[in-house]
Amino acid sequence: MKGRKVSEITIRRLSHYARCLRDAKSKGERTVTSGYFSRRCGISSAAVRKDLTMFGEFGKQGSGYNVIELLDQIESILGTCDPPFIIIAGAGNIGKALLESGLEGTGGHSYSAIFDIDPRLVGIKCAGLTVKSMDEIRTTVSGHENFIAIVAVSRGEGQKVVDRLIDSGCRAILSFNLEPLDIPDGVELRYIEVSTELDLLTYFMKT
Amino acid sequence: MKGRKVSEITIRRLSHYARCLRDAKSKGERTVTSGYFSRRCGISSAAVRKDLTMFGEFGKQGSGYNVIELLDQIESILGTCDPPFIIIAGAGNIGKALLESGLEGTGGHSYSAIFDIDPRLVGIKCAGLTVKSMDEIRTTVSGHENFIAIVAVSRGEGQKVVDRLIDSGCRAILSFNLEPLDIPDGVELRYIEVSTELDLLTYFMKT
Repeated sequence: MKGRKVSEITIRRLSHYARCLRDAKSKGERTVTSGYFSRRCGISSAAVRKDLTMFGEFGKQGSGYNVIELLDQIESILGTCDPPFIIIAGAGNIGKALLESGLEGTGGHSYSAIFDIDPRLVGIKCAGLTVKSMDEIRTTVSGHENFIAIVAVSRGEGQKVVDRLIDSGCRAILSFNLEPLDIPDGVELRYIEVSTELDLLTYFMKT
Repeated sequence: MKGRKVSEITIRRLSHYARCLRDAKSKGERTVTSGYFSRRCGISSAAVRKDLTMFGEFGKQGSGYNVIELLDQIESILGTCDPPFIIIAGAGNIGKALLESGLEGTGGHSYSAIFDIDPRLVGIKCAGLTVKSMDEIRTTVSGHENFIAIVAVSRGEGQKVVDRLIDSGCRAILSFNLEPLDIPDGVELRYIEVSTELDLLTYFMKT
């Protein structure tokens, strides 16, 4: 797979396999079968085997996959063996909830800093971090070539924050703000859309 | 499109178009062009026109689409003109953050009730709702044929809550809990996966 662009759907499944493998590892299991992934991820064993052979010979049908070896290889594909610096822009309800829930068990990801524009929030402690002023973004991320910013600010404030993040060198954004955001080429933007998921569930429930 | 199953990706785009149309409506705009959707949703005008003609003759190229008429038709496809009852299972950080952020501007969706198993949380007020005991789920949803449950409980508690929801007639679940959940056929389950989105961003940033 070296050098080949892998589709989003495959990367998403690899992320799910990695989560299952971390769980197996924490329980001391040495090998898992394609059926293990199949049951836990809701896809067929054949699709699991196809995904995993795409990336080389990770295991043998019958004898199963070596948990540590497969996890190492998937994390090296995902790039999470060298996890990026992750910051949260916005210390409101969502930002604080993310920080308090943490990212334990997700393969090395953790939140490194949280920022807000509201001076009343700056300085407050939350899950071991102190809320910083948005003015400190640039100095905080300095030295981190790859960093991800999570945007969870008040409605209508998204673009201003995104512009500031991009000025600070950000190339990957996960937005809880639903307003459409203008970003330059080369910046990857993804949205967490609770309302769209509710629309999808509404549609599927009625059809 | 009557009777025809529409793909998830199309429903997702219709949900985005509906959001844009509500915004246009709130600003008093009467018509919008395919370019309006294209710019705001990051897809080509041709793809927008193709999506919209799939569902009948909503507009004419050049003269644009009538905002109110198109929104009515999309909401009737999505089923959000008769929005389902939405409950939140779990009054922890995520549950409270969702409730406090609300669903304004999402086309009729709103949170109707929130539940927790922790007796210390039951009775607490949050964004106008009082946290109820999980034991009250069945009586609260009684009479609501279509309801959606958002699951945001402590790690390891997801399956117990999901079993209880399904016993109460739930057929649509949006889970913030990442543990794999067993659900019977006929129940639609979707996950909000911050960690998978971070994996995707990490991968795309490094390739």
